[in-house]
Amino acid sequence: MKKIINPDKSQWNNLTKRPAIEMQKLDETVKSIFSEIQLFGDAAIRKFTKQFDKVEIDQIKVQDEIVHLSTIKVPQNLKDAIIIAKSNIEKFHSSQITEKQIIETTKGVICWRENRAIEKVGIYIPGGSAPLFSTVLMLGVPARLAGCKEIILCTPPDKNGEINPAILYAASVAGIKTIFCVGGIQAIGAMAFGTETISKVDKIFGPGNQYVTAAKQMAQNYGVAIDMPAGPSEVLVIADKFCNPEFVAADLLSQAEHGADSQVILLSNDEQIIDETLKFLEIQLNQLPRKKIATVALKNSKAILLNNLFDCIIFSNLYAPEHLILATKNPHDLVSLITNAGSVFLGNYSCESAGDYASGTNHTLPTNGNARNYSGVSMDSFVKKITFQEISADGIRNIGSAIETMAQAEELFAHKNAVTIRLKSLK
Amino acid sequence: MKKIINPDKSQWNNLTKRPAIEMQKLDETVKSIFSEIQLFGDAAIRKFTKQFDKVEIDQIKVQDEIVHLSTIKVPQNLKDAIIIAKSNIEKFHSSQITEKQIIETTKGVICWRENRAIEKVGIYIPGGSAPLFSTVLMLGVPARLAGCKEIILCTPPDKNGEINPAILYAASVAGIKTIFCVGGIQAIGAMAFGTETISKVDKIFGPGNQYVTAAKQMAQNYGVAIDMPAGPSEVLVIADKFCNPEFVAADLLSQAEHGADSQVILLSNDEQIIDETLKFLEIQLNQLPRKKIATVALKNSKAILLNNLFDCIIFSNLYAPEHLILATKNPHDLVSLITNAGSVFLGNYSCESAGDYASGTNHTLPTNGNARNYSGVSMDSFVKKITFQEISADGIRNIGSAIETMAQAEELFAHKNAVTIRLKSLK
Repeated sequence: MKKIINPDKSQWNNLTKRPAIEMQKLDETVKSIFSEIQLFGDAAIRKFTKQFDKVEIDQIKVQDEIVHLSTIKVPQNLKDAIIIAKSNIEKFHSSQITEKQIIETTKGVICWRENRAIEKVGIYIPGGSAPLFSTVLMLGVPARLAGCKEIILCTPPDKNGEINPAILYAASVAGIKTIFCVGGIQAIGAMAFGTETISKVDKIFGPGNQYVTAAKQMAQNYGVAIDMPAGPSEVLVIADKFCNPEFVAADLLSQAEHGADSQVILLSNDEQIIDETLKFLEIQLNQLPRKKIATVALKNSKAILLNNLFDCIIFSNLYAPEHLILATKNPHDLVSLITNAGSVFLGNYSCESAGDYASGTNHTLPTNGNARNYSGVSMDSFVKKITFQEISADGIRNIGSAIETMAQAEELFAHKNAVTIRLKSLK
Repeated sequence: MKKIINPDKSQWNNLTKRPAIEMQKLDETVKSIFSEIQLFGDAAIRKFTKQFDKVEIDQIKVQDEIVHLSTIKVPQNLKDAIIIAKSNIEKFHSSQITEKQIIETTKGVICWRENRAIEKVGIYIPGGSAPLFSTVLMLGVPARLAGCKEIILCTPPDKNGEINPAILYAASVAGIKTIFCVGGIQAIGAMAFGTETISKVDKIFGPGNQYVTAAKQMAQNYGVAIDMPAGPSEVLVIADKFCNPEFVAADLLSQAEHGADSQVILLSNDEQIIDETLKFLEIQLNQLPRKKIATVALKNSKAILLNNLFDCIIFSNLYAPEHLILATKNPHDLVSLITNAGSVFLGNYSCESAGDYASGTNHTLPTNGNARNYSGVSMDSFVKKITFQEISADGIRNIGSAIETMAQAEELFAHKNAVTIRLKSLK
């Protein structure tokens, strides 16, 4: 981790820049897989699964018995933990459901909004060594709460053609009944176009490698919405002398272990805190199984001494971190100053891991500076807010002439006539 | 308008398909203009304005005196109408501001969300014969209400290098102080990258032709968000025998006059209503200045007889119209059945023009079937919803072991350690 002492403000913009992401040219690969899926459906899914996952799948849809078996295979303490997490996610996301508010903007002109669930949503869960069952909860629970009619989950098979039972168990807990054993570009293509077995969906959620990300991006050209643009995960910690440097080091590492491209930034108004944190970082790093990954991530990372906490917040807003930890004595004093962040953790006991798993907030958050213009996943991500209006005879009398005047000035005479004809009928 | 009698349900999917949009290959054009803007800034803006708008602009930023002059140039009745519209838009959008809700998901674990305005937003208003000042209000008013710090507006100059005073007046009414005389791809590029005169923004809003649409799409690759994917405007009217066919005809035409590619659909359970509407359509069409445009749009349009209102709603949900008018006796009976629509108009006096201009709802809505997975522009479009959490010592005691178990099962040991280290310190 690079230590930087009191950088001049002219350097801040550069210091907040992420390393350029090498976007491989994947468009052609994605296009050709997409068009095979459009042409050959399930047969293409089987072909690409054999090609990329090196396994022949018997059934694309995971059979109910296999899902049921997961209840036996997952150890009890993990099942208990998943239930606690699910319950907290449910509580917090339920609170985001908005009530209908009816507004009379002018006498006789009544407007309101109603939420409608996106009918068909697809959740992608990556494969790899570790099963990301926590993401199943983060996407499945709000989808269910929102009332999405069809929730499907795609995840790649392991080398034995199987799916980790923890993913299957989390899916049942979240109420997801339809799980497909398919990953990568072919999974995104299947959800975008539909096959004999897999339904076409309206919106695709979930993380993935660069192939999945490129495929999700491309799916948008075919009328499918996606949760948000993807990028490497990141944390920014603001720590003052009241923090616990051992805790701060642990939080920085829990971000750094995500991937070699993870971003970790420490800001402090106290050089001693920086030095102590870096010392603990070294100690804890050596005990980590994912030490190699974390070490690479830390090479791109910075510990920066700034004049005061106010400057730390200004820097953080400029960086717009996915996760922002305020390890300070009075974190509430800083809250109103935050303009750009995905999710914020206040005080010494609010570690990022809590939000990643079990506190109730969503862990699908904007990265790569997108916290400037995107929100994390919430109930809003699973609904459309439809506007309604009901105008009475009095209502159109009250606003009709304003509409006529404006329509005429925009040279849209049929728009004007739709009002004129109604006003005439009321005379 | 093509009349279709009781089509078999097997045909519905086909009937709800929009005509394929011929997307010209504009990527290369957009890329080359974008890279000139990145290299040469304002000089590139001037160059492309001369090339595309055939005019040399003196000042890229519209001078304050010119904005002030618009107050004199715009006729009083139009100014009054704009004020009425602004007030209604403000009332309805204010009601969408959500209060902070603090949730204790587990004892000692407190979560909430706070809204933060997107700091810098750019509004694009197309040029052409008619000045779309109504869109200035629809985007400027909520941006202001949300508290966006910097709101800029780009609109192309006419052949005299000027901007229609109604646009300038609407901008002042909406509180937009920074207006640039630049349109097309170069305007979107300027807002995406910034120039000496024009600030880089975080999110770009507003309609435009295929060049503007392609440029907005491309801007997303550079970290800029956009309001929504664009497509031709559309209305679907569901009418029963209690409707006024003269009104329905006027509503269909007010959509058809938008553009030759506009989409107009009439559904009814009563053939006589369809026939009468088509008769009035013919009469009203002949009186329209934009008859030529509307005639082309009507060629792609359909009037469909279905068995009952329930079937009409099912068809409408499948089509997912931008605007849905319920010209029926009991429109409220149908509301809960609607799953996909941008904005809904209830009863005989709620004409689409009202929502386009002055009732208070937003007229920037999802088209091309995107009402399945996108909402129209609302206050949500101008804010990020940031999650916060504060966990006490008791809180981490309560959920700590669940986090440890889950992190371990996902093989993220630094995540686990961030909790373990805290639990240890509390022993």
